[in-house]
Amino acid sequence: MSLTKPRTMPGVLELLPLDQIAFMEMLDSIRAGFERYGFLPIETPAIELSHVLLTKTGGETERQVYFVQSTGSLNKGGDPELALRFDLTVPLARYVAEHEHQLNFPFRRYQMQRVYRGESAQRGRFREFYQCDVDVIGKDSLSPRFDAELVAVIYQVFQALKVGPFQVRVNHRMLMRGLLEHLGVADAEMQTLVLREVDKLDKRGVDHVRQSLAGGEIGLGAAAIDQLFDFVGFRSANVDEALAKLEALPDSNAALQQGISELREVITLVRAFGVPESFFAWDCAIARGLDYYTGTVYETVLTEHPEIGSVCSGGRYENLASNYTKSKLPGVGISIGATRLYWQLREAGLIGSGRSSVAVLVTQMDPALFAEYAELAALLRGAGINTELQLESGKLGKQLKYADKAGIPFAVIVGPDELAKGVVQVKDLQRQEQFEVARDELVASLRVEIEQFRAMPLGPLGESASEQS
Amino acid sequence: MSLTKPRTMPGVLELLPLDQIAFMEMLDSIRAGFERYGFLPIETPAIELSHVLLTKTGGETERQVYFVQSTGSLNKGGDPELALRFDLTVPLARYVAEHEHQLNFPFRRYQMQRVYRGESAQRGRFREFYQCDVDVIGKDSLSPRFDAELVAVIYQVFQALKVGPFQVRVNHRMLMRGLLEHLGVADAEMQTLVLREVDKLDKRGVDHVRQSLAGGEIGLGAAAIDQLFDFVGFRSANVDEALAKLEALPDSNAALQQGISELREVITLVRAFGVPESFFAWDCAIARGLDYYTGTVYETVLTEHPEIGSVCSGGRYENLASNYTKSKLPGVGISIGATRLYWQLREAGLIGSGRSSVAVLVTQMDPALFAEYAELAALLRGAGINTELQLESGKLGKQLKYADKAGIPFAVIVGPDELAKGVVQVKDLQRQEQFEVARDELVASLRVEIEQFRAMPLGPLGESASEQS
Repeated sequence: MSLTKPRTMPGVLELLPLDQIAFMEMLDSIRAGFERYGFLPIETPAIELSHVLLTKTGGETERQVYFVQSTGSLNKGGDPELALRFDLTVPLARYVAEHEHQLNFPFRRYQMQRVYRGESAQRGRFREFYQCDVDVIGKDSLSPRFDAELVAVIYQVFQALKVGPFQVRVNHRMLMRGLLEHLGVADAEMQTLVLREVDKLDKRGVDHVRQSLAGGEIGLGAAAIDQLFDFVGFRSANVDEALAKLEALPDSNAALQQGISELREVITLVRAFGVPESFFAWDCAIARGLDYYTGTVYETVLTEHPEIGSVCSGGRYENLASNYTKSKLPGVGISIGATRLYWQLREAGLIGSGRSSVAVLVTQMDPALFAEYAELAALLRGAGINTELQLESGKLGKQLKYADKAGIPFAVIVGPDELAKGVVQVKDLQRQEQFEVARDELVASLRVEIEQFRAMPLGPLGESASEQS
Repeated sequence: MSLTKPRTMPGVLELLPLDQIAFMEMLDSIRAGFERYGFLPIETPAIELSHVLLTKTGGETERQVYFVQSTGSLNKGGDPELALRFDLTVPLARYVAEHEHQLNFPFRRYQMQRVYRGESAQRGRFREFYQCDVDVIGKDSLSPRFDAELVAVIYQVFQALKVGPFQVRVNHRMLMRGLLEHLGVADAEMQTLVLREVDKLDKRGVDHVRQSLAGGEIGLGAAAIDQLFDFVGFRSANVDEALAKLEALPDSNAALQQGISELREVITLVRAFGVPESFFAWDCAIARGLDYYTGTVYETVLTEHPEIGSVCSGGRYENLASNYTKSKLPGVGISIGATRLYWQLREAGLIGSGRSSVAVLVTQMDPALFAEYAELAALLRGAGINTELQLESGKLGKQLKYADKAGIPFAVIVGPDELAKGVVQVKDLQRQEQFEVARDELVASLRVEIEQFRAMPLGPLGESASEQS
């Protein structure tokens, strides 16, 4: 029979078990951070009705959508009625509108699920990846305090992830628009074009952006460009500097006034929420191209790894679900692209394989004593210790080698002598040490050993556990 | 602007947050049970390459497959090259074949992910649902001891789920085939037809199945049918009875001999693995229609809710990945359809909403004291207590009502008097009691209260928490 080559589609990240454990620990840590701030979990189906999912997206997003058809529907022909979600925000809008009367507002939700995008195949681009989102949705209104709290949430989450120094950087879209109006760009669409150019500063550089701004479509004067570049070149060193810069801005129009007032509240509260100032900056270069955002916008960078780019972004939006409900639902949210983050951290050497979830292998030294081994395994499992029981007989050395290769830290060994004496041999596979313990004390003893093992720092490349390969 | 009705496709289960928490607790409990027995996690992409996914499935399964196309591919026309997985077994086969040289065998894996099937819309049938699978894959061979261990895994998992009395029922496909051979049905395809009929006993009843067996295609004689019915009518009351029945069987052919020997090992070990006998039975009526299974087959029933049917099924297979690799990879596995199980338990009144993941609401009695409230929230969060901070001002009564409605058990209240005295009021929203505690002792005091609250039994319908609606 001819064989099919076993492979996944390009653009997915499939992990070996110990890497999967490391990835799940990252997700668990993010989840714990979200819950610490009072966010509640939801999950939505990966498949949505196409006409519900694609009400408001334009051509650009639509080209990346994966459509879904059952065999029956495919045979009938016609347009696909189903599609895979491409983010968690549109499903959130649909969810909140659908369940509006059963939810408590402000509705704080977190959601950690896979999303799907028909990206062109490219290293580091994923077609299926986890997003970890938190959003707060208000009814009719939502205080800028929620925007400030999200800075604290990001701080908490990335502290716990232990990925080295990082900084949460915010800016304010309305303030930017007000400033553009002040500089003579009053038209909203023209403002959007300018903001998109500003977004390209990092990638394209000052000269390119200056040319684009001065060019035909936008046609901004040299003085205005200078003032704009002066503004977007600012990144605050601390809260006082940020506040001073805010006070020095012109407040010549309503947008500037509201932007300044809201951003002032966010910046002031960052301190009250216990975020150390070095982890926070007002960064005027952040524009975030999406028109969707209307107030605060967020980016987060690992300061020692700027090449990674923003690892957590988001912003404030005026109205979440205007396609689905007449209720006005303003919100603010942030998103971590967890698959990409994990992949980047691994590429940068900041994360390695995880520790095996198995703590103990009960070996089979003497096949005749199998009932005793099964009993020992049941004893350990009953005490909450994750235990693998060696079910097939074979040389003890081979069994220990398997445990070591699989990253199982402890092996329990019992022969006829141990059985007669009521003792057990415990082999510490990390330290390559072995000790004897009374059978009655095995659980207590292993609990201490496992705790010590788990407390040992796991190097960035997981070198404390044997590599799985 | 015209509104789009916000709705999901039919056949999905989307939950409100407190129900989502209950569902996630169920998944976490299942995960813990799998890990207790030394199984390692993997996840595979939901989207697979069609030609890889559909190598061996027949027409019946294929009709239920969801195919996936990006916009670009859709516009080009042609057959879809991608499809959503319909189970976790085919992806496991692909995974093991693809990563064969990086895995340790026997490979014990668990996987808890959503799968997709184009089921016809019907109450209780899901098109997107979680499966929770454990499988052990051997290289070349795999001892029947692994089959026995899975009984212990199922026992552990369902004990922890607290769903009332249940029973793991096993049978052996090869033994069944051997018996059919003994009864004169030697042809393998004919045997399959007979086993499929036996599978219908529950739903169609004895008379219908007897007619089918005697009818044209199969044409089994009355005496053979009597013998078969006598056999499939047996369900062991305890291990000794099961072993006695095994010994009394004819061993007139190789299939019978091997089947008896393997099933004897499984039944004998159930005791050694610490499974109480009342939770286990040899049930000769279990045939499991799939040709895929070649040895032990499993079903699990909630004995007080037989109407639910099997909540955990699986079996032994000869060769996992013959479509992808020349390696012989025998395996044995079980699967829990978690979405359906959750839905059924809820319908049966055995499971209700979960408790909010938020333990404390720090209220805002006096807007002027907001900085103090933010500090209190930071204090609690720093101590690992999931805390929501009231960010918008409003009447205290309304804030407390919100907490109660949202199922948050404790509220912290501080006014100018409390601030001056260095104390805090804690309101227990369940008991409708309030007590004062020194600010320094708030964390310690709340830890005790929260622990007590979590230890309180949550009724099947979650009545200890206020219902979320």
